Amino acid sequence: MIAKILSTGDEVLFGDIVDTNAGFLSRTLKESGIKIEGIRVVGDDLDTLVSELNVISASSDLCIVTGGLGPTADDLTALACSRAAGVELSLDSHALASMKHYFRKKGFEFSKENEKQAFLPAGSTVIENHYGTAPGFYITFDECLFFFLPGVPAEMKPMFKKMVVPVINRKFNLSLNIGVRRATVFGLGESKVGAVLKDFDSLFPELKLSFRIKFPLIELKIVSMSSTEIESQNKDLKNALDWVTSKLGDYVVSDQGRDLAQEVGYLLKRLKKTLAIAESCTGGLISNLITDVAGSSDYFLFTAVTYTNDAKVNILGVDQQTIIDHGAVHEQTAIEMAAGARRAAGADFAISTTGVAGPGGGTDDKPVGMVCIGIAGPEKKAAKTHIFYFKNRDQNKKLFAATALNTLRQALIQIDGQTA
Amino acid sequence: MIAKILSTGDEVLFGDIVDTNAGFLSRTLKESGIKIEGIRVVGDDLDTLVSELNVISASSDLCIVTGGLGPTADDLTALACSRAAGVELSLDSHALASMKHYFRKKGFEFSKENEKQAFLPAGSTVIENHYGTAPGFYITFDECLFFFLPGVPAEMKPMFKKMVVPVINRKFNLSLNIGVRRATVFGLGESKVGAVLKDFDSLFPELKLSFRIKFPLIELKIVSMSSTEIESQNKDLKNALDWVTSKLGDYVVSDQGRDLAQEVGYLLKRLKKTLAIAESCTGGLISNLITDVAGSSDYFLFTAVTYTNDAKVNILGVDQQTIIDHGAVHEQTAIEMAAGARRAAGADFAISTTGVAGPGGGTDDKPVGMVCIGIAGPEKKAAKTHIFYFKNRDQNKKLFAATALNTLRQALIQIDGQTA
Repeated sequence: MIAKILSTGDEVLFGDIVDTNAGFLSRTLKESGIKIEGIRVVGDDLDTLVSELNVISASSDLCIVTGGLGPTADDLTALACSRAAGVELSLDSHALASMKHYFRKKGFEFSKENEKQAFLPAGSTVIENHYGTAPGFYITFDECLFFFLPGVPAEMKPMFKKMVVPVINRKFNLSLNIGVRRATVFGLGESKVGAVLKDFDSLFPELKLSFRIKFPLIELKIVSMSSTEIESQNKDLKNALDWVTSKLGDYVVSDQGRDLAQEVGYLLKRLKKTLAIAESCTGGLISNLITDVAGSSDYFLFTAVTYTNDAKVNILGVDQQTIIDHGAVHEQTAIEMAAGARRAAGADFAISTTGVAGPGGGTDDKPVGMVCIGIAGPEKKAAKTHIFYFKNRDQNKKLFAATALNTLRQALIQIDGQTA
Repeated sequence: MIAKILSTGDEVLFGDIVDTNAGFLSRTLKESGIKIEGIRVVGDDLDTLVSELNVISASSDLCIVTGGLGPTADDLTALACSRAAGVELSLDSHALASMKHYFRKKGFEFSKENEKQAFLPAGSTVIENHYGTAPGFYITFDECLFFFLPGVPAEMKPMFKKMVVPVINRKFNLSLNIGVRRATVFGLGESKVGAVLKDFDSLFPELKLSFRIKFPLIELKIVSMSSTEIESQNKDLKNALDWVTSKLGDYVVSDQGRDLAQEVGYLLKRLKKTLAIAESCTGGLISNLITDVAGSSDYFLFTAVTYTNDAKVNILGVDQQTIIDHGAVHEQTAIEMAAGARRAAGADFAISTTGVAGPGGGTDDKPVGMVCIGIAGPEKKAAKTHIFYFKNRDQNKKLFAATALNTLRQALIQIDGQTA
């Protein structure tokens, strides 16, 4: 089957918004066993739209089109479809009723402009929109099945999953079992991970391994699509995941696909331990990541972002003499910051960062990209210096934060191992 | 001129990464007066690549291709180009020298696989890559000028701006003056902003106004492309920007395109004032945004993320009785948090947040989406409650943080007005 995606709209074509729809559609179709052959983006121009639909219908079996279903003059998709299919636009009573229902429910006024949205190409079937005003529709012409959906992701995505996928599965008679496992990796580059796992395809020819960079993590995804029993599929997936994690060892953050903050949260919860944080160069990022996890109030107590030396001394109780002797960016300062945050909050564990995120502030001794990570727990305190070769503030903050969380993760795993 | 963009790679086609390259290229070309007609995405498949290049060359004058220039077996773009152009791949000594120089500089070992990347279609001109290993190249066939660039955005973007745009401008003899002004808006939805500014096109027919959502901000962009004098162009742009900001009033965060953290930083620096922050529900996000701005150590002193009541009392000196009487989510608590952070850090100003980001933790009294924002300055303390109708933790954290920063911005503007 040849399947394509067509994203429409000047705002996507000219880069004013990033098209996340096409990627979502492609990923979701892949889960039904359909591999997209190409993605097209065109603007709000009637002739271009018609010609693109004609080219696609002549060469494809399935196409998902997003955008251009709104009430304004530059929403031309339904008209373009009617031209390409050689049919008239006509008022669809089902679409009209569904729109009026939505407007009533939301307390919006239904205007003449909105009625335009209920004019669909003759022979099409409406796809109701419970999340916004523009209904979608589907129609077959030139033996290609077209689905037309609104461009707003919050409307398009649930419509696609709930109302389009079932139609596609039925029309193309698809009934594969899809199994997915995810693992996250930190500390190895993409090419290194690829080299370590290079035998995957020959060892597990039925499965597909893919990478996705979620800087500074890499997410590995193992997908099985087959008509075999779910039980044997699960066994295959488990074997593959075990092989991957044994190959990558401690670089694996989670064999459940959790990111570092989620994994640290999972471990803290499981061990019934609490956390405090002392941040300097990461400026609140670690704390922000930790609190992005719903339920983090179960284990997270307190963060001090101490950008100044005064704050390090006054709030965290870092010894003034430590800073005079060694400066703010030093392992001893990091240790005292972590110990201070732990004490102030009465937490079981604390981590700390002090370093140079850049772009300014680097010296020969303490270059941009250098960070000291401290950790304090019930039994010991420690710190380590890391140097990264990025000059970019944003990347450094992310790397420093991930390194601190990974330091904590490794400490928690040790305890988990002892108590297990 | 007909111009197209071709993004290549399975990871883009199947939605494992979001293609930000195409949007960047489209926006940047528009600044040279070139409107892209379409964007194409295809995977790492030789036949598809060749046929797509043939279709494009037959119908276009200019095409930018990204991706597939790496050293591995699925990097097929140079080979596909040579097939489409009907020429051989041959070792380009200039490309080889440039790669070897890059490897030496980085201390990487140059391997046989890398040499493959220096084989370019005969007749092409190398585009050196100072940011990574894969060189690009350009070539004309079927009267279409093709540029081939690596897919890694951090390499592709500077190569395009520095080395490709000048070639395009020269080859197509483009000499429009491009003027751009940016303004940021907070607190109004996109459709409201559109309604307020609906007369723009008729008042300024020579200029183009566009919106870009950077949640929770909206960025407005006014672009002038003309062959008139720069001076008269700047006057037109100033008039348009003045009209836009007068229409939107206090909803305008910055008429220089700064986001909230940048604008607040700009004002603090200008007024020579310092900042402390007390965060509860925003969990470090405000602090992270403030410290994303390079140079923020000039005005930012300290943040306390006090997730627990104990931390609010012990670290920030919030009165235990306040929490017993009113709870943590209350204006009085917010005021005491801000005052406590200001005092602890010896800062001129402090802002605070305490609320319910969700998804759990909401009650009838204090629903998900409710936040109390406190502010403490040299002269007064205040707090205000805001309720947003999002149920999503991530969106709420962003909205709460933006509202706190906007509260500070408004206070700083008042002082700025008094001292001006």
